[in-house]
Amino acid sequence: MAPASEIDRLIELLAKLPGLGPRSARRVALHLIKRPAQLMAPLADALAAAAAAISTCQICGNVDTTDPCHICANPERDASVICVVEAVADLWAIERTAVFGGRYHVLGGTLSALDGVNPDDLHIGKLVDRAGDPAVTEVILATNATVAGQTTAHYIQERLAATDVKVSRLAHGVPVGGELDYLDDGTLTAAMKSRRPL
Amino acid sequence: MAPASEIDRLIELLAKLPGLGPRSARRVALHLIKRPAQLMAPLADALAAAAAAISTCQICGNVDTTDPCHICANPERDASVICVVEAVADLWAIERTAVFGGRYHVLGGTLSALDGVNPDDLHIGKLVDRAGDPAVTEVILATNATVAGQTTAHYIQERLAATDVKVSRLAHGVPVGGELDYLDDGTLTAAMKSRRPL
Repeated sequence: MAPASEIDRLIELLAKLPGLGPRSARRVALHLIKRPAQLMAPLADALAAAAAAISTCQICGNVDTTDPCHICANPERDASVICVVEAVADLWAIERTAVFGGRYHVLGGTLSALDGVNPDDLHIGKLVDRAGDPAVTEVILATNATVAGQTTAHYIQERLAATDVKVSRLAHGVPVGGELDYLDDGTLTAAMKSRRPL
Repeated sequence: MAPASEIDRLIELLAKLPGLGPRSARRVALHLIKRPAQLMAPLADALAAAAAAISTCQICGNVDTTDPCHICANPERDASVICVVEAVADLWAIERTAVFGGRYHVLGGTLSALDGVNPDDLHIGKLVDRAGDPAVTEVILATNATVAGQTTAHYIQERLAATDVKVSRLAHGVPVGGELDYLDDGTLTAAMKSRRPL
């Protein structure tokens, strides 16, 4: 016989999270059950608070507790550079490096003929509008270095060709700390072609 | 810069769950953020409901929304057999097989000189009390087939020697569907020693 309904329901919902299956969901549920005050109730509160607070930024597509998001609303961020990413996770990844001081634009996916994702399904029109602002001087295409990501970057580049904006993309090459022997041919070829004088 | 505080707090709590690190916690958080109504709010409710409802059974140590738990309270379960398990997860595993119709006793761990776990730290005294009830005829030791589990089983067996109760343990042998070539020596030896006439 199964455990009580509240526990069942919890396991069922936990199993829907990415990376968790039925077995790990049971493990997580038991872990939570053993720590009701330290972990379970705080997590319930954090989820409810986040669910109530979160909205999507109407300008860039980031998720935040404010709209416009804290990046678009920050006057200290450089409004002349827009970094185009596929998803919010990529935006977070770049923010963690603290290397970029401009603004973002989240596409919400990549073009895919197979999955029926057309330019209209992504926030590309909105990007072209933003790039039309005379204050914007550069658009950095930071889509993933996958076929879908590069196809999308190429499409955006063509759409932006009519504007005066400078379009750039992230450098491809040997990852920092990477060993040549373990790199794939594509990366090595890209690194060789983009070699820089010392 | 990091995302907003509610999201940060959520990621921080998610990263404390077993099997999730900072990276997968971020992934789970984004997955939840994209589905506030379908997944995030229901999960918050399920967590709060479970946190409020769950208690530990005073008889067997199971976690449930009632005390005594639904197994101890069920008059159709055989009260003459007690299955001793290390943790609630093991109880759930046996319940899923539906092969056992008796009651349980959750030890809450295994004896461990290294970690300073003494018999007093486990619910062994309570088990001896329960086994002293004349209605109980058999105690099945279903601790894990690890050194710690078997040591604990051995200790319990000695503690129960003074009572009239029959003590048994789970059979060791070839797992159903298992191939001999891939089995460890210990399991094969146990299977050979416990061979049964056809």
